[in-house]
Amino acid sequence: MAPDRSTRLSGTARIEAFSDGVMAIAITLLILEIRVPPQSGSLLAGLGRLWPSYLAYLASFFTIGIIWLNHHAFFGRLRHVDHVLQWWNLILLLMVSFLPFPTSVVAEYIRQGSASDARVAVALYGVVGVLMTVPWVFLWRRLVRRPELFEPPYDADFARAEGGRSWVGIVVYAACIGVGLLLPVAALALYLAVAVFYAVTSQGWSSARAATPVD
Amino acid sequence: MAPDRSTRLSGTARIEAFSDGVMAIAITLLILEIRVPPQSGSLLAGLGRLWPSYLAYLASFFTIGIIWLNHHAFFGRLRHVDHVLQWWNLILLLMVSFLPFPTSVVAEYIRQGSASDARVAVALYGVVGVLMTVPWVFLWRRLVRRPELFEPPYDADFARAEGGRSWVGIVVYAACIGVGLLLPVAALALYLAVAVFYAVTSQGWSSARAATPVD
Amino acid sequence: MAPDRSTRLSGTARIEAFSDGVMAIAITLLILEIRVPPQSGSLLAGLGRLWPSYLAYLASFFTIGIIWLNHHAFFGRLRHVDHVLQWWNLILLLMVSFLPFPTSVVAEYIRQGSASDARVAVALYGVVGVLMTVPWVFLWRRLVRRPELFEPPYDADFARAEGGRSWVGIVVYAACIGVGLLLPVAALALYLAVAVFYAVTSQGWSSARAATPVD
Amino acid sequence: MAPDRSTRLSGTARIEAFSDGVMAIAITLLILEIRVPPQSGSLLAGLGRLWPSYLAYLASFFTIGIIWLNHHAFFGRLRHVDHVLQWWNLILLLMVSFLPFPTSVVAEYIRQGSASDARVAVALYGVVGVLMTVPWVFLWRRLVRRPELFEPPYDADFARAEGGRSWVGIVVYAACIGVGLLLPVAALALYLAVAVFYAVTSQGWSSARAATPVD
Repeated sequence: MAPDRSTRLSGTARIEAFSDGVMAIAITLLILEIRVPPQSGSLLAGLGRLWPSYLAYLASFFTIGIIWLNHHAFFGRLRHVDHVLQWWNLILLLMVSFLPFPTSVVAEYIRQGSASDARVAVALYGVVGVLMTVPWVFLWRRLVRRPELFEPPYDADFARAEGGRSWVGIVVYAACIGVGLLLPVAALALYLAVAVFYAVTSQGWSSARAATPVD
Repeated sequence: MAPDRSTRLSGTARIEAFSDGVMAIAITLLILEIRVPPQSGSLLAGLGRLWPSYLAYLASFFTIGIIWLNHHAFFGRLRHVDHVLQWWNLILLLMVSFLPFPTSVVAEYIRQGSASDARVAVALYGVVGVLMTVPWVFLWRRLVRRPELFEPPYDADFARAEGGRSWVGIVVYAACIGVGLLLPVAALALYLAVAVFYAVTSQGWSSARAATPVD
Repeated sequence: MAPDRSTRLSGTARIEAFSDGVMAIAITLLILEIRVPPQSGSLLAGLGRLWPSYLAYLASFFTIGIIWLNHHAFFGRLRHVDHVLQWWNLILLLMVSFLPFPTSVVAEYIRQGSASDARVAVALYGVVGVLMTVPWVFLWRRLVRRPELFEPPYDADFARAEGGRSWVGIVVYAACIGVGLLLPVAALALYLAVAVFYAVTSQGWSSARAATPVD
Repeated sequence: MAPDRSTRLSGTARIEAFSDGVMAIAITLLILEIRVPPQSGSLLAGLGRLWPSYLAYLASFFTIGIIWLNHHAFFGRLRHVDHVLQWWNLILLLMVSFLPFPTSVVAEYIRQGSASDARVAVALYGVVGVLMTVPWVFLWRRLVRRPELFEPPYDADFARAEGGRSWVGIVVYAACIGVGLLLPVAALALYLAVAVFYAVTSQGWSSARAATPVD
C-alpha cells in the first residue's frame, strides 16, 4: 500500500470535520432549552426568572468551546489517527452531545426545584463534567504509546505531560460536585469559572509553546 | 473535458462533507429525546426512571458512530462518486436521519407502555436497523460493477467481500427483532451490543489490512 | 491584488460548506416533526396513523436531497462566486430552512384537519415549493450575464439552457397546487413523485454530459 | 518549529469550519420556533396570525446571513488566527447561537402579549443585536495591533477603518431599541431593514475593493 494512501485513509481531516459538526451542533442546541416565558405576569419578570438558564447556557457554551479549542489543538498535532483514537474521540463526542441534558436539568431544578433536587441536578452536571474529561486521559495515553502518530516535533514526553493536565480537570469537576452538594448555585457559577479558567490555562500554555506569529 | 474537471465534479469531498453533516446532526439530535423529568417526586428517582432513554441513546449513538466509521472508510477508498452511489448514499442518510424517531419510541414505550406495545417499539427499531443496512449492500454492489471508481489497489473482489459483510448486519438486526418480540428490554441491550460488536469486527478487519502506522 | 488572493476571497469552498451545513441540518430536523404517538390505543395503530408524516418526511427529504445534488453540480462548475450569487444562494437556503414548517403543517392537517384545511396545507407546501425553485432562475441568469464565473468549458449558452430547466420546476409545483386544491393526499404523493422525477431528469442530463468514469 | 507547522496549527480552516457549523445550525434552528397552528379555527386564519413569526424569522435569518458573509470576508483576509481572535470569535458565536431565543420571544409577545410586554420583547432583541456587534469591534481592534495576522495587502489602517464600521452597527441597533419602546412592530420591521441595509453596505464596500472577476 502506497504511503499516501494510508495517509488519506487515516488522515485527520474527516474526523475533525465530523467532530466539529457534533460540537457545533451540541453548542447550538443549548439554546433550545431556554424557553419563552409563559404569558402570566410581566415579560420582564419572566425573563429575569430565567437567570439559572442563562448561567447554565453560558457554562455549557464555554465548556464545549474549550473542548473544541483543545480538540483543535490535539488533532492539529497529529499526522495519523488510529482506531483507538477514533473510539475515544467518539466517546468524547458522546459526552459533549449529552451535555444539553444536564444543562436543562440544572437550569430547571435550580429555578424551581427543592433544595435537595437542586443538589442532585448540580451533581449530575459535575458527573457529566468528569466523564467528559476522562476521554482526554486515554487520548493522550494512546499517544504516549504511539508517538509516531504525532507530527514532529511532538513526542511521548509531550503526550505524558498533557495527559497529566487532563487529571486536573477531573479533580476540579469532582471538587465542584462537592461544592454543589453544599451550595448548588455556587457550583453552577463554578462550572462557568472552570471553563474560563481552563481557557486561560490553555492559552498560557499554548502561547508559551507556539511560534511568535501565533500570538 | 479535462480529467481534473471530472475529478472535481465527481470527487468525494463534498458528498463526504454533506454526509458528515447529516450524521453529526442526527447523532446530536438524539439528546433532545431525553426530557427533563417532571417535578413530581424526587429528581434522583426521576433520573433513574429514564434508564430506557439512556440505553436507547447509547445504542443509537454508537449505531450512528459505526455507520460514520464505515462511511469514512468506504468513501476514503473511492476516487470518484457516480449517481448510483449518490442515491444509495442519500437513502442511507434517510435511514440515519430517521433513527431518532424509533429511538424515542423505544425509550418511551419500554418505560411506560404495555408489554405488547414495548414489543412493537423494539421491532420498529429493528426494522429501521435492517433498512439502515440495506443501502450498504447496494453501495458495494455498485463497486463490484464499477471497480474503476476505486482508488487502487481496491478492486471488484474486495467490494464483493465487503458486500457480504453487509448481509451479516441485516441478519443480526432481523434476529434482534425476533428477540425483541419475546424480551423487549433484552433486545434494546442487544442493539447496543450489536453496535459495539460491529465496531470490534470493523476494527479487526481494518487493522489486518491497514499499514502499520494506522494502528 | 494578486490573482490567488481574489480566488481565495471569492472561491466556492466556504459558500459550499455553509450551504451544505444548512441543507444537512434542514434535512435532519425534518424528523423532529414525527412525534412519538400518545399512549392511548395500541402503538401499532398509533404508528399507522402517522402515515401522512412519513409521506411528508419522504417528500421533503428527497426534495432537499435533490436541491443538494443540484447545488453541488451548480457550484462545482464555478471558479468564482460574486455577491449576487451569494444573495440568491442565501435566499435559496432561506426556503430550504423554511421547508420543515410546511412539512409539519401538511402532515398534521392531512391526518386530522378538515378537508378545506388539508387543501390549504397542501397549497402552502406547493407555494414554498415554487419559492424554492425561483432562486435557481436568478442563479442561472447571473451566469448568463457573467459567464467568466464559470470554470471552462461552461458558458452563457449552457447557463441559458439550465435556467430554462428551472422554469419546469416552477410550473410543476404550481400544477401540484392545483391538484392539491382538488385532492390533497394525491398532491402530497405528487410532491414526492416530483422529487424523484427531478432526480431522474438530473441524472439523465448529467450522464449525457459527464465523462465516462463518472457514470 | 517549521513554518508550515505553525501555519497548520493556527490556520483559519478549522475555525472557519466550526463557525460555519454554528452559524448554519443557528440559522436553521430558527424554523423550530414557527409552530403548526392549533386546530381551532381555519388553518388559513391560523397561518395568517403567525405573521410576527414570519417577520422575526426573516429578520433573524438575514441577520445571521450577514454575519456569515462578514465572517467569511474577515477570516478570508487572515493568514493566522491567534487566541484573542479565537475568543472573540467564540463570543460572537455565543451571541449568534443565542439569537433564536429573542426571536421566539419577539414573535410570541408581538402576537399575543400586552403592549408593554411587546416593548420589552423588542428591546431584548435589540440588546442581543448590540451584543452581537460588539465582538466585531474587538476582532478588528486585534488586527490593528497584530496586522501580521493579515494576508497582504491588508494592514492596520484597513483594520482601523473596518473597526469603525462596526460602531455603526452598534448605534443602529441601539436606535432600534429606542424605536421599539415607542412602536414595537415598527422596530421588528426595522431589524429586518437593518439586515438588508447592512447587506447593501457590505456589497458596495466590497465591490469597490474587490478585483473585477469577483463582481
